[in-house]
Parts: sequence; C-alpha cells; structure tokens
Amino acid sequence: MAYISTGVNQPGIVELLRYKPSTGNALLNLANTLLIETSPLSSGERELIASYVSYLNECEFCHLSHTAAANAHFNDHGETVNCVIQNIDTANISDKLKALLRIAAKVQQSGKQVLKTDIEKAFENGASDEEIHDTVLIAAAFCMFNRYVDGLGTTPAKAEEYAEMGKRMTQGYKMQPIT
Amino acid sequence: MAYISTGVNQPGIVELLRYKPSTGNALLNLANTLLIETSPLSSGERELIASYVSYLNECEFCHLSHTAAANAHFNDHGETVNCVIQNIDTANISDKLKALLRIAAKVQQSGKQVLKTDIEKAFENGASDEEIHDTVLIAAAFCMFNRYVDGLGTTPAKAEEYAEMGKRMTQGYKMQPIT
Repeated sequence: MAYISTGVNQPGIVELLRYKPSTGNALLNLANTLLIETSPLSSGERELIASYVSYLNECEFCHLSHTAAANAHFNDHGETVNCVIQNIDTANISDKLKALLRIAAKVQQSGKQVLKTDIEKAFENGASDEEIHDTVLIAAAFCMFNRYVDGLGTTPAKAEEYAEMGKRMTQGYKMQPIT
Repeated sequence: MAYISTGVNQPGIVELLRYKPSTGNALLNLANTLLIETSPLSSGERELIASYVSYLNECEFCHLSHTAAANAHFNDHGETVNCVIQNIDTANISDKLKALLRIAAKVQQSGKQVLKTDIEKAFENGASDEEIHDTVLIAAAFCMFNRYVDGLGTTPAKAEEYAEMGKRMTQGYKMQPIT
C-alpha cells in the first residue's frame, strides 16, 4: 500500500492508476502509444529500454514488470534483458540498439547529459531520426513512471506474478479503461 | 532545431510534439489532465510545481514557459514563482504548499528520495491524499518533459515569447490536436 490512502489493494503503479482514473487513463494511453503503437522499434526493443531505465532508477516494480513484457515479446527465456543489464558491450544485440541504450542511460541521468556526439554515434550505427526520438521519449517516460511508483511508496508485486503480468502487457495497456 | 531532423521549425517541446503526432497528442493529453483538469490544487499551484521542477532540472524552455503560465494564473507579476525559486522557506505561500514543493524537489532527484516522513509533514500541514498524489505525479511528469526537451537538444524560445505562450497555456493543452 502506498504512502497515501488509495482504497486500492494492488501492487505498484496499478494501485495509483485505479486511485485516480483521470490521470490513470492518460498514463495508460501514453504507455500504449510509446510501447505498443507505431514505431520503427519493435515492442520488445521498447520494453527492453523501459526495463533498462527502470533498472537504472532502481524501481523494482517497473523493472520486473517490463522485463517480463520484454521477455514475452522476445520469447528468449529472458536472455536479452539479462545480458543488457549485465553488460551492454557484450550483449547479443545490434550495434544500433547498443547506441540507443547508451542514449537511454544518459537520459536516465539528465536530458542535458545527452550530447550531439551520442546522437551521431547512433546515426553512424544505422539508427533513424524516429528511432532516436522514440528512445529518448521512452527513457524519459520511465523516469516519470519510476518516480511516480517509488515517490508514493507503492509495494512491488510477488515475484511469481510478473511473468503473467508481462504476457498481459504485450496485449496493450488500454485493454480495460479505468472508471 | 533538435539533434534529429524533424522538419518542424518551432521552439522547445513544440518541435517534438508536431514531429510525431501520435506521441504528441498523448503527451498533450497528459499535460492537460495534470495541469488543467480536476485536482484539489489550483492550476496556478500545479504550474508552479512544473516551473520549479523544470528549474531544478535546468530545462530553460519548460521552466520559462511554465513560469509564464503560473504567472498568468496568479496574475501577480511573477512574484510567487520568483520567491519560490529563491527560497521556499521565506516564500509567501502556505505551509502546505511549501511541504508539497519539498516533496516535488525530492521527486526531481529520485522517487526513492521521498520518505514517509516527507509525506507525513505534508499531511501535518493540511495536504490531502489527492494533493500529495498530484504533486508527486506532476513533479515526475516534468522529469519526463524536461528530459525529452533537452535530451533531443531542442532550442528555447526567444525571451519575449514566453509571456504570450503562458497565457495560451492557461487555456489548456489540447486546444488544437496535432495531425
């Protein structure tokens, strides 16, 4: 249960989304737009960025839930996310995705940490304008979601609940509008 | 102009919102929900939180535009925002708003920086559950907007443009959906 009285007994951000439906629906709409709707990055790649930034922000609920979503998209028993978390340099992903994840890591610190040379590096490795745009925005958005979840002191889910949650997340974030 | 090619010659976040309308509309919908729609905090108080967090993140465009919006709501020649930026302790605002702004400052650093004692302090000064909720979410959201604006290297507006921009912002953020 969060620091405030919500009357909702749910883990992580779910408690807050249901507590105030007006902001909850706006946030779910944004998550769906960022992670499911049109992008040159696959939903798996976008969930990987979400998981990685949440890891850097030490937000347990967001990290484990978006890791589970990425794992469900990749269907690789968690190998991709695990390798990225351990060491981007040696992960079995493209140089383009490595450059994008390095930009995401800078966004996690501050927008001002991202330099023109970081963007140029991504271009050199084949990233498009829209791929860079979506990476920066997703990384920035998880700096919001992580702060929302931890700043209000919500409680993580049980370890065994994330895999099923991740599968549901691959179906979209607006399935059941909150009323 | 931003680090990426957008084909849009507009300052700050406006360039990015128009570059990708799907994410642009989701972000404008969120901004409108947070700053204009139902809350126990006035729109002026919410714009003050947005301005203050953007100041802490050193995001010039967001700080100056939301300062202008707060000034337009308060109609006080900028006195409230200026005093808060200089020193919350001596600002001519309620103890409740001071406690909420201190929570916002912690959210700017990290969600984990917010302690139960910070929340209790706000309750002691008369804040409601929803006021604390909205403060944390607005502060978190500006950690996203600021990173989006600076992480993609957009350019600020001209100094003389912010006052008019602030007046428009008081009318809402969804006036002209982007297509």
